[in-house]
Amino acid sequence: MHDTTPTSLPRRRLLTGGATAVATAGLAGLHGQALAQAAAAPAAAKPLPGYAGWKNADAVVVHSSTTIETKRSAFGTSVVTPTNQLYVRNNLPTPADTIVADRDAWQLQVSGVKQPRTVSLRELKTMGLETVTMVLQCSGNGRGFFPSKPSGTPWTVGAAGCVTWSGVPVRDVVQALGGLMDGVPYMTGTGGEVLPAGIDPKTVIVERSVPVAAMQDAILAWELNGEPIPLAHGGPLRLIVPGYTGVNNIKYIKQLAFTPKESDARIMSHGYRITPPGGKGDPSQPSVQEMSVKSWINSPVPEDGAQAAGTVQIHGVAFGGLHGIKGVEVSLDGGKTWRAARLVGPDMGKYAWRQFVLQATLPKGKHVLASRATDDRGNVQPETRGENQSGYNNTSWADHAVTITVA
Amino acid sequence: MHDTTPTSLPRRRLLTGGATAVATAGLAGLHGQALAQAAAAPAAAKPLPGYAGWKNADAVVVHSSTTIETKRSAFGTSVVTPTNQLYVRNNLPTPADTIVADRDAWQLQVSGVKQPRTVSLRELKTMGLETVTMVLQCSGNGRGFFPSKPSGTPWTVGAAGCVTWSGVPVRDVVQALGGLMDGVPYMTGTGGEVLPAGIDPKTVIVERSVPVAAMQDAILAWELNGEPIPLAHGGPLRLIVPGYTGVNNIKYIKQLAFTPKESDARIMSHGYRITPPGGKGDPSQPSVQEMSVKSWINSPVPEDGAQAAGTVQIHGVAFGGLHGIKGVEVSLDGGKTWRAARLVGPDMGKYAWRQFVLQATLPKGKHVLASRATDDRGNVQPETRGENQSGYNNTSWADHAVTITVA
Repeated sequence: MHDTTPTSLPRRRLLTGGATAVATAGLAGLHGQALAQAAAAPAAAKPLPGYAGWKNADAVVVHSSTTIETKRSAFGTSVVTPTNQLYVRNNLPTPADTIVADRDAWQLQVSGVKQPRTVSLRELKTMGLETVTMVLQCSGNGRGFFPSKPSGTPWTVGAAGCVTWSGVPVRDVVQALGGLMDGVPYMTGTGGEVLPAGIDPKTVIVERSVPVAAMQDAILAWELNGEPIPLAHGGPLRLIVPGYTGVNNIKYIKQLAFTPKESDARIMSHGYRITPPGGKGDPSQPSVQEMSVKSWINSPVPEDGAQAAGTVQIHGVAFGGLHGIKGVEVSLDGGKTWRAARLVGPDMGKYAWRQFVLQATLPKGKHVLASRATDDRGNVQPETRGENQSGYNNTSWADHAVTITVA
Repeated sequence: MHDTTPTSLPRRRLLTGGATAVATAGLAGLHGQALAQAAAAPAAAKPLPGYAGWKNADAVVVHSSTTIETKRSAFGTSVVTPTNQLYVRNNLPTPADTIVADRDAWQLQVSGVKQPRTVSLRELKTMGLETVTMVLQCSGNGRGFFPSKPSGTPWTVGAAGCVTWSGVPVRDVVQALGGLMDGVPYMTGTGGEVLPAGIDPKTVIVERSVPVAAMQDAILAWELNGEPIPLAHGGPLRLIVPGYTGVNNIKYIKQLAFTPKESDARIMSHGYRITPPGGKGDPSQPSVQEMSVKSWINSPVPEDGAQAAGTVQIHGVAFGGLHGIKGVEVSLDGGKTWRAARLVGPDMGKYAWRQFVLQATLPKGKHVLASRATDDRGNVQPETRGENQSGYNNTSWADHAVTITVA
């Protein structure tokens, strides 16, 4: 599959457990699930880009140098998504790794507070500490299920992960800087990517505004899943806005501004808008911000190949965006009838996903398996997607159903 | 530090974010914390053994080819310990990686049930699914603080981690095999390591018994932190007994037996016993099994170098073994006075550790920082260790205190 990839160390660990396994890695690749996955893999899998060369090549699909998706069959059942298989979606080329050479020296400019100034990451670490586990999901996750084939990466389910961030609460930083100015209904973050020359910066800069209320649970994070945030995921410093889609979680954050208006950067004013099919984005349309209730099945999936008849543990993930999960139902007949699934594993808070499992006995034949989540406010995952030009916010349970074969 | 280690990919990720960073890795190594750690590192750090060559060399101390410790300064604040920095302690040489080439074909022999038989991992996966997060801790963690210098690895705090396992509940397997036989007060697991030739197997085999009541929350696990269990950590199948020290969580498990008596293997009958100082282990002494309430500070620690005067976020971890954590206190004066710390981050259940943080302002000078945890039964972490010949079960808060310098 990825034998040409020079950085396949994680793959060898996954399958054979050690870096000494070079000699047997080829053999291991012919066994078990790996065989089924190889059969299902596209003929010409792209290699991992250099800045993400440490990812587990077997667990991801490389769409392009800036878009990498977790395979549906790779999610496992451990709640937290390992960083080495977490999706990547960068709006601009990844900055040079010199920016993570001296992490504590990173500078953040804070404005819209009573004592605006530049704060180093070293100082941020003295201001407070919080840890939050949350679903990080690209706005376009599920785009691949839109029959209209919107432009953009055709993600299925794998532009998402449940990960743990540590950093300082934004509210602690605001307090240390004298509190908010009056009349600032927006929190605006600006990424530190180097912008291409000769282009109006506003047309390319990554700058997003969210309602200032989102500050309550937002953190400026320096740690992801127990390690300093890798460059690929926005290190040394990333704005984390739990419950909001990926683009609102600004990587390499250089400016945090509390502002009277939304940013006029194109990625805010025209990009990431819920635009009617055939239309163009404009500031009057809803911005893609909060996530809503969604679930999908991770096993069994067609990528695993034909299933043996008998008992199966159907499992997947469910999350509610800003709300916790109340329950999940699973259908074995494409949505005609539903059974209550069991939530398993630790509950890591309302922004994290829950794992669900339903034990079932499946006879030979084809089966359409679907899942449908309900959040703690009673919102039920819908059957159909909300059509929009760019394929955002697909939460349709029907789109996320899987057809499996029991032999 | 580890420039001679051929498998330093994770280190480069940690510091510079990408596998393309070879050219700058040397430079990065001279900055910030890395510099302080380099100064504190032993002159001749051992390289990672091949089966664990994928570990983050910068985050661990290699004591020997079978004993690898997480650095106190590397724990971070994300609750779950990343697998690439989780400690390793193997009682026997690691099996050949051929045993993880076809994981689902692994066979487990189950006895002491009404329908004893051999079950494949493939079949175990159909029997049930549960996920548990727990502290995995070597029985000898903290041995390095015993002034008596017991034989064995002188672990300080890093022979422990908080990790997530997925697998089938042991009770589901027992139920599928007809239920327990009568008169079996012990659950006995046997590891699948290849034993050295010419030696009585009972003197070296890894076989441990725990009270059958521990079955209630035990699982037979195939996944660790979202990936198939690496060989270094007991893959393809490991018995997980939450709340019990590491040795009771049998790697490469080949036999699960419900037995009328404890195993007579030497590691059970004479090893891992609470033996009076100067004595020899025997079956009449308490076996090292359940963990009890313990905590320690991970930052600031001397390895981080001198601290700047001013505000500091003192943080660490606390766990209760079989019980959850009720609270943690921190002392800035070596235990004379205590302040209540704040628990932060997700609560992953009673077997996991909690993170605690105390914000404090430290003037110039030396400070002895200590932490003291209380579990939800009201058990308080003791000041002193329980002396024993082999240096097991050190929970002393005084031993785990750190002396830091504020400049």
